[in-house]
Amino acid sequence: MTTSTRQLSLGAFLMATGHHVAAWRHPGVPADPLDFSVYRRAAQIAENACFDALFVADSVAAPNDALASHSARSVYFEPLTLLSALSTVTERIGLVATATTSYNEPYHVARKFASLDHLSGGRAGWNLVTSDAAAEAGNFGRDAHIPHAERYARAWEFQQVVQGLWDSWADDAFVRDKASGQFHRPDGVRALGHAGEHFRVQGPLNVARSPQGRPVLVQAGSSETGRELAAESAEVVFTAQPSLARAQAFYADLKGRLAGYGRGEDDLKIMPGVYVVVGRSEAEAQDKAEQFQALVDPRVGVALLGRMLGNFDLSGYPLDGPLPELPPTEDGQRSRQQLLTELAGSEHLTLAQLGQRIAGGRGHFSLVGTPLQIADQLQVWFEGRAADGFNILVPHLPLGLEDFALQVVPELQRRGLLRKQYQGRTLREHLGLQRPANPYFT
Amino acid sequence: MTTSTRQLSLGAFLMATGHHVAAWRHPGVPADPLDFSVYRRAAQIAENACFDALFVADSVAAPNDALASHSARSVYFEPLTLLSALSTVTERIGLVATATTSYNEPYHVARKFASLDHLSGGRAGWNLVTSDAAAEAGNFGRDAHIPHAERYARAWEFQQVVQGLWDSWADDAFVRDKASGQFHRPDGVRALGHAGEHFRVQGPLNVARSPQGRPVLVQAGSSETGRELAAESAEVVFTAQPSLARAQAFYADLKGRLAGYGRGEDDLKIMPGVYVVVGRSEAEAQDKAEQFQALVDPRVGVALLGRMLGNFDLSGYPLDGPLPELPPTEDGQRSRQQLLTELAGSEHLTLAQLGQRIAGGRGHFSLVGTPLQIADQLQVWFEGRAADGFNILVPHLPLGLEDFALQVVPELQRRGLLRKQYQGRTLREHLGLQRPANPYFT
Repeated sequence: MTTSTRQLSLGAFLMATGHHVAAWRHPGVPADPLDFSVYRRAAQIAENACFDALFVADSVAAPNDALASHSARSVYFEPLTLLSALSTVTERIGLVATATTSYNEPYHVARKFASLDHLSGGRAGWNLVTSDAAAEAGNFGRDAHIPHAERYARAWEFQQVVQGLWDSWADDAFVRDKASGQFHRPDGVRALGHAGEHFRVQGPLNVARSPQGRPVLVQAGSSETGRELAAESAEVVFTAQPSLARAQAFYADLKGRLAGYGRGEDDLKIMPGVYVVVGRSEAEAQDKAEQFQALVDPRVGVALLGRMLGNFDLSGYPLDGPLPELPPTEDGQRSRQQLLTELAGSEHLTLAQLGQRIAGGRGHFSLVGTPLQIADQLQVWFEGRAADGFNILVPHLPLGLEDFALQVVPELQRRGLLRKQYQGRTLREHLGLQRPANPYFT
Repeated sequence: MTTSTRQLSLGAFLMATGHHVAAWRHPGVPADPLDFSVYRRAAQIAENACFDALFVADSVAAPNDALASHSARSVYFEPLTLLSALSTVTERIGLVATATTSYNEPYHVARKFASLDHLSGGRAGWNLVTSDAAAEAGNFGRDAHIPHAERYARAWEFQQVVQGLWDSWADDAFVRDKASGQFHRPDGVRALGHAGEHFRVQGPLNVARSPQGRPVLVQAGSSETGRELAAESAEVVFTAQPSLARAQAFYADLKGRLAGYGRGEDDLKIMPGVYVVVGRSEAEAQDKAEQFQALVDPRVGVALLGRMLGNFDLSGYPLDGPLPELPPTEDGQRSRQQLLTELAGSEHLTLAQLGQRIAGGRGHFSLVGTPLQIADQLQVWFEGRAADGFNILVPHLPLGLEDFALQVVPELQRRGLLRKQYQGRTLREHLGLQRPANPYFT
């Protein structure tokens, strides 16, 4: 293949113990999801490999299904505290944390991400999500989660408020004139005075405009509403795409919506998730992948499947029977529900087999092979307008990330697809995103 | 003076640029309140001096008075992100962050502090406050702050929920049995199922029980309601006491309330704030203190005074006139309002003089003198049942803290009043507080 001048972006999707649901059972994997040293090691591996960012998902509830006791997903660090800690043991890599708009206040969210952006010298990103699980609702005074449309309306307004708060201060507001005693220009700050359907927020924010102007806005919704929200405001989109063709269609669709909001194609980066198991030979890679698969308790795989299909309890169905017919989910997982239903039908998978299939990649595209094979595929996706980069999921942490960093990254660098050293200091600079001007102080 | 076996606790009250309102104007003081390196330096100075904890105050609004542009208090790090970052550049010192119960959700607060406790190996503390400023209310959909009684009722329930969530998991819940695939014991977790006046929170928390069992609970309220809340649940109380006699009365009163809640005297540590300016000679100390006082713009001092009296706008009153008669404040500053009114009356201070008087210590007891003089006073308070320790306020950061650490701390250590090295690893161990058992799993 030819070398490329355009370069791809890489995210390291950190999940305690790794992405494979049974990773923690592997003898070589540290099984404590609250061991900071594992995250520190993973972050430093990713930074040495010049990844654009670390990415941390989130939920504001502990899983409550019957098999929760058999997975390592019940407890974990809160993302903003974790990434703040990681900001001091890294220097360049971006720090993207998930925070829900459904059960938060925009003032708190704006403030914490702006604070992280200052702490890290311009490396913060906010992955905006909505909450679609009843377990989350129950921790915030509700019996059921907020319906999809209302959730997105709230998310839209939430995001407007956060962006407005991030623009509270002019970049040059702080003159700090020791002689006169003037600390900031009185005309360098503005109250937001937002009064909307869901929020009333006066402002200004009590954090100065941050090094990136605004932390990078990341989204992951793939519903129609989610795509419109992303086209209007997102700068990075994470997405789960099971095939090249699907990824190309998604890419074309989302990029095609940008012009409608006065935005250019380069203003939004699309980064599908890819589950990667790498080996020096194809056999070694397959063997490694199967080691993890063999550790999957079928009931645990099915419980995970139930959550991914839209929080269904599948524990009453026979493991060796087919995927039962389910009502279309009302939550944000509808496109994933369709994909998994198709997959089960086309390959005649039993419930247990389908559960095992998603135990590692969770519906993301999976690559199991040699460094060359994996680099080939990533290059095809990248050059074939299916991706601007990838969010890398590895079966186990920290070693799965080290495998990727030591084996795949050099091959991507050799092909000119990935930087060999950081050129910039901020996440925006890594991603090739403009620093937004402050529209209120021009 | 004689040496003592009981030892005192020290908190380093970190405020951007320092406590003196004009500190940032001093030539030797870094004037950027969002410079992490200043905090790192201050944290390491305090840790080298064996302080029990760092303490960070908070407000969820930027000050909006006319003189905000002339003080360095408008922007600063959000406490939980800041202390998470500091957790990785320190090893032993406690990390106490303020978070309001008025405009937060207990699930978020419980989770973030538990996460910080895990990140730091058991060094987290939560300073529970209520919000009493209209500017804060305006950032959370309200026109005015919540009235005092309702605020405290909410705080009480909030704290119950947070403590309950911290006890979601048994200390030994996580068996992580790789062979059987059981990650935690199913009977090692419980939902909270709280349904009260202000909150409905199902739980469980998605963070394991933390190294300290529960992060240390700190409070600072001094109203009647505040004292009862503290007697019931606080483990540390910060307080502003202007004289030894007042501090002794407060100490006796609060300790006397503990038995009513089945608690012992040692279950709650009382740590008054002390503003300290130290010099090798008394003249040098006075000179240093006056250097800062001379930098106070009288209008800035009066604006700060207005906030401390209960968010009054005093800008319309003559600077050389007396403190005007003010209605009793409805917010949490009533005891401070009384003290400052008495002080102004007894010393016939003008408005500008009173503003200047509180520009450094903010109503806390002030000590300006040699290391011996300062150590003498601290010992008198400590041995005279006015304090179990002190929250140290210094005029400027990081150098004011260095002065205290290099000059006063060795004198306290020589007298046996302060540890020469840490004996424990957690904040509870430093403070001599028991690790609470989990009442739900005994």
